[in-house]
Amino acid sequence: MEHLKKVTLNEIDVTSGFWAQRQKINREVTVYAVKDRYEETGRFGAFDFDYTEGGDKPRPHYFWDSDVAKWMESAAYILAKNPDDRLQAEVETLIDKIEEHQDENGYFNIYHTVIEPNNRFKDRDHHELYCLGHLIEAAVAYYNAVGSDRLIRILDRYIDYVIKVFTVDRTTGFSSPGHEEIELALFKLYSVKPDEKYKNLAMFFLNERGKDVPPDEFWCNSKYFQSHMPVREQKTAEGHCVRANYLYAGMADGARETGDTALFHACIALFDDTVEHKMYITGGVGSTHIGEAYTAPYDLPNDTAYAETCAAIALALFSDRMKNIEIDSRYADTVERTIFNGIISGISLDGRCFFYENPLEINLADRARHASVNNGERLPITERQLNFGCSCCPPNVTRLIADIGEYICSYDDERIFVHQYIGSSALFGGVKLDIETEYPSSGEVRVCVAGAKGKKMYLRIPGWCGQYSLNVPYTVKNGYAEMEIKDDIFEVLFSMEMKPRFMAADPHVRADAGKVAVTYGPLVYCAEAVDNSFLLADVRLDPNAEAEVRYDAYFGAPVITVKGTVTEENTLKALYMPLKDVKRRAVTVKLIPYFGFANRGPSDMRVWLRY
Amino acid sequence: MEHLKKVTLNEIDVTSGFWAQRQKINREVTVYAVKDRYEETGRFGAFDFDYTEGGDKPRPHYFWDSDVAKWMESAAYILAKNPDDRLQAEVETLIDKIEEHQDENGYFNIYHTVIEPNNRFKDRDHHELYCLGHLIEAAVAYYNAVGSDRLIRILDRYIDYVIKVFTVDRTTGFSSPGHEEIELALFKLYSVKPDEKYKNLAMFFLNERGKDVPPDEFWCNSKYFQSHMPVREQKTAEGHCVRANYLYAGMADGARETGDTALFHACIALFDDTVEHKMYITGGVGSTHIGEAYTAPYDLPNDTAYAETCAAIALALFSDRMKNIEIDSRYADTVERTIFNGIISGISLDGRCFFYENPLEINLADRARHASVNNGERLPITERQLNFGCSCCPPNVTRLIADIGEYICSYDDERIFVHQYIGSSALFGGVKLDIETEYPSSGEVRVCVAGAKGKKMYLRIPGWCGQYSLNVPYTVKNGYAEMEIKDDIFEVLFSMEMKPRFMAADPHVRADAGKVAVTYGPLVYCAEAVDNSFLLADVRLDPNAEAEVRYDAYFGAPVITVKGTVTEENTLKALYMPLKDVKRRAVTVKLIPYFGFANRGPSDMRVWLRY
Repeated sequence: MEHLKKVTLNEIDVTSGFWAQRQKINREVTVYAVKDRYEETGRFGAFDFDYTEGGDKPRPHYFWDSDVAKWMESAAYILAKNPDDRLQAEVETLIDKIEEHQDENGYFNIYHTVIEPNNRFKDRDHHELYCLGHLIEAAVAYYNAVGSDRLIRILDRYIDYVIKVFTVDRTTGFSSPGHEEIELALFKLYSVKPDEKYKNLAMFFLNERGKDVPPDEFWCNSKYFQSHMPVREQKTAEGHCVRANYLYAGMADGARETGDTALFHACIALFDDTVEHKMYITGGVGSTHIGEAYTAPYDLPNDTAYAETCAAIALALFSDRMKNIEIDSRYADTVERTIFNGIISGISLDGRCFFYENPLEINLADRARHASVNNGERLPITERQLNFGCSCCPPNVTRLIADIGEYICSYDDERIFVHQYIGSSALFGGVKLDIETEYPSSGEVRVCVAGAKGKKMYLRIPGWCGQYSLNVPYTVKNGYAEMEIKDDIFEVLFSMEMKPRFMAADPHVRADAGKVAVTYGPLVYCAEAVDNSFLLADVRLDPNAEAEVRYDAYFGAPVITVKGTVTEENTLKALYMPLKDVKRRAVTVKLIPYFGFANRGPSDMRVWLRY
Repeated sequence: MEHLKKVTLNEIDVTSGFWAQRQKINREVTVYAVKDRYEETGRFGAFDFDYTEGGDKPRPHYFWDSDVAKWMESAAYILAKNPDDRLQAEVETLIDKIEEHQDENGYFNIYHTVIEPNNRFKDRDHHELYCLGHLIEAAVAYYNAVGSDRLIRILDRYIDYVIKVFTVDRTTGFSSPGHEEIELALFKLYSVKPDEKYKNLAMFFLNERGKDVPPDEFWCNSKYFQSHMPVREQKTAEGHCVRANYLYAGMADGARETGDTALFHACIALFDDTVEHKMYITGGVGSTHIGEAYTAPYDLPNDTAYAETCAAIALALFSDRMKNIEIDSRYADTVERTIFNGIISGISLDGRCFFYENPLEINLADRARHASVNNGERLPITERQLNFGCSCCPPNVTRLIADIGEYICSYDDERIFVHQYIGSSALFGGVKLDIETEYPSSGEVRVCVAGAKGKKMYLRIPGWCGQYSLNVPYTVKNGYAEMEIKDDIFEVLFSMEMKPRFMAADPHVRADAGKVAVTYGPLVYCAEAVDNSFLLADVRLDPNAEAEVRYDAYFGAPVITVKGTVTEENTLKALYMPLKDVKRRAVTVKLIPYFGFANRGPSDMRVWLRY
């Protein structure tokens, strides 16, 4: 097992290109858009702990703490790079309120203090530990950003209380969280404040999971909570996808921090099962809205895909941890797949609106179907929303974008790994590393490393990349180009062939049989009806015809046109007719990056098109 | 409007070929299989009216009367052609019990007499009038079969009571039936006992419909009952498909018997909407299990198709009536489509087991999906069953097969129409008409008519038929080959080109885009995994390759083999990979008639295959 260190946000600046532009919108628009909605919906106000039954304030939900905690974490990442007194004051005010309303014994939870004070740690699905986990992540981010450990100290008292009631007194109604998150958060806290109690508590929760199997209910079963067996025995990805991947991320942390090889091998099996059988080409996971869950291998319907934004983020968190404990480019490939597709599809291009679900196909005609029958079926989504009742995704994508710098590099004493090609400038362990690139619009990457002579550098060769070249000698190891750093200032030009690719799915994926998805570098493309005046279901692409690529400033990425055919409507005579009597005509199909779909009003959309 | 008379069962014998074989199984096996299940489940016993709460007998359901009535009707059609004292005695015993338990005032309904005696005609969805309708159809069939009008006389008293409470006293809880059926039944009774009160009551129910719009409920709305507007204003097929088509059949009868052109034009519009937008290629209707209902135009999913056997039968009943009031081959085409496909798929080849739903695609992997999540989704069907809780379909298909002779010919003083090509011998109005054919295994039909010199004969040119020839002069009118009968004995050889055809659907049918269905004459074909050792979703047919046809005694019809390709599995390296790296290999795909699917154990099945 490897033990690479990530280059942290304090050590790296995202300087240019795709993600610099995204971060600008994120800090100028999104972080305030989320805050505004959270103020309107009472999430911020809930920290005053003055909700009364029948009063004016909305009733707090038991995971509102976590929504605001993710916003605080987002603000902290932004503050780390762009100091802003007003934004910092907002965070401080929230910390004040947390301090003010923390119990004598350390406990802090809005819902359970104002609504169900006698029911603390009784209901496994009430997210108290999940909320604590997100507060810990916010505390660590804030500490790293501005140096204040006030929130960490507050939460340290809460953690002591959790240690007492869960591991010593054992007076709680359950022994592992109903929604995982605290495990990875405790390991993150341990990385900045290496007190063994944090690691031990995280391991306690990992080890307890699967012991306290809850009874299966109509609406869920123990797999939903990944509680169907002890974690080291889990080899297939099951249940609620956000829960699952937060758990797996915590397991990867646990493997790294304890050297537990059984945990490590379980992580590999869970990763394999996801990316080989249960992941959309966009990096989305969760094939059904029922339980927002994994289903069976190869069951990846496009129109009813759930593929929650948070689930793709969770898969990124898990995969990104794996890359530091095993040298295998598949992990960073998966991070790349999610960040360029299934994660940022969850936020509008203007940074103001969000998707919870990220289907790979929208058919507006389904609305007519649903209107024509009764209420028993779920309405398909068509447009991003300003917010939702369950609003976990908006601050999750906000924090991810603000923190994207931490996904780029990792290292140990002898080796430097470049995992993501993001225009950036890093300084870590005496090494200066600059990346210049317009990736993914261009496949040209210039990496310049200084102060690392004698070490080895590893550049990820993306899994999507068929042809590439480097201007220095290299060998390929586990998906990385390995090279010796021969000079004090060592510059590498890595050139990846960028062109539209027609991708097929394993034919066991019934939903994609006979179809292709067009990709360009890491970007997955889709066709929208707003650009194409014919039935998308009817389009047949010609994978052998020349595709055209043109940079489009609206999407901040290339758009692609490909040749295809559609039915000549005037040859249609009946609902069913001989194939030989149906003529087809040539069309040009415009494809846009999947992340940009549904930004121009409701429209049919398809990633997978027939060929 | 035309006013053709059908050649009735008393006037025609099915003598040979496909349907003679089906009728043999029907009278030797099916009618007794249904009876056995109905005895086991208490449906026959319920006619003793001795159910007691907490007693041994099962609680009668409020449509059990209709189940047994359809069995009686089936038995009557069989008795008409194959006298059988024991079978007749069974029917007589049931009539005895009906007579015995009929109320003083004429009312008869098992459920409402033994369970809810104070709630008669209060709940619109309690099927009392539906049950009466089926009893009337049984009574007419029995009268035609053996000459006894005892059941008609019993029901005449009940009908008088219905006339009184619905149209005079108006003391009922609703004014038109919640499940249509009595309308067409009253017109059928009127055809053998032309008392105006029957016609008037039927027209009363047609005219009341849409006036008493029930409030929309969570699980259904007024369209479910075709009560969203007056029937003459209804132009789109809506709601529960069996209800809808029973209503439309009654409307067609009403148009015919009253000359009401508004009703006639509504029937045409409703037929058009069904066959142009909402009908499966098998003749199945009902795109969703929610409400067993029509949905939106072109919404014809194959795997979740409901396509209830009874709904295809109902569409046949409606279409068959239309052929006698408008000369247009589309009506008999639709009858043909249903009887060779979506109706007889509802019964196993051995005549013992039944389908309620008739999907056009079965994916056993769906079971894994359903097992992996919670109970919120409906399990897909895989096998025919001996019976079901709601057991309307088994006796419905039984009666249809026993009565198939009535679908063949109709006539008036000057014209003789042959609508269905079924080996038969008829004698009606002084005319003798014999049909010899092995259709649909062969396209050769010999029609011999005697005693009709000077009249015109019309042979339907099936909509599926591209090439055909006749050995006599003819002109084509509204889809029929019209010819003069020039001799006392006039023989026509009608030769239809029979070959496998690759059919496409209108591309608005998203589920079928990029796919073909193979047909042979009127038969729709499907591929089953039991015959094909590869993924059916992965198969790509070659519509230009030669298909082979071979008669298969097991199915009593041809089986077809076509060329195609599937993925070369050993070229698969990942869940997603470049299309150019995926190789395909040639396969031969065996196709069987759709009606024969699921007779050899659970198996993946597809009608629509990619090309």
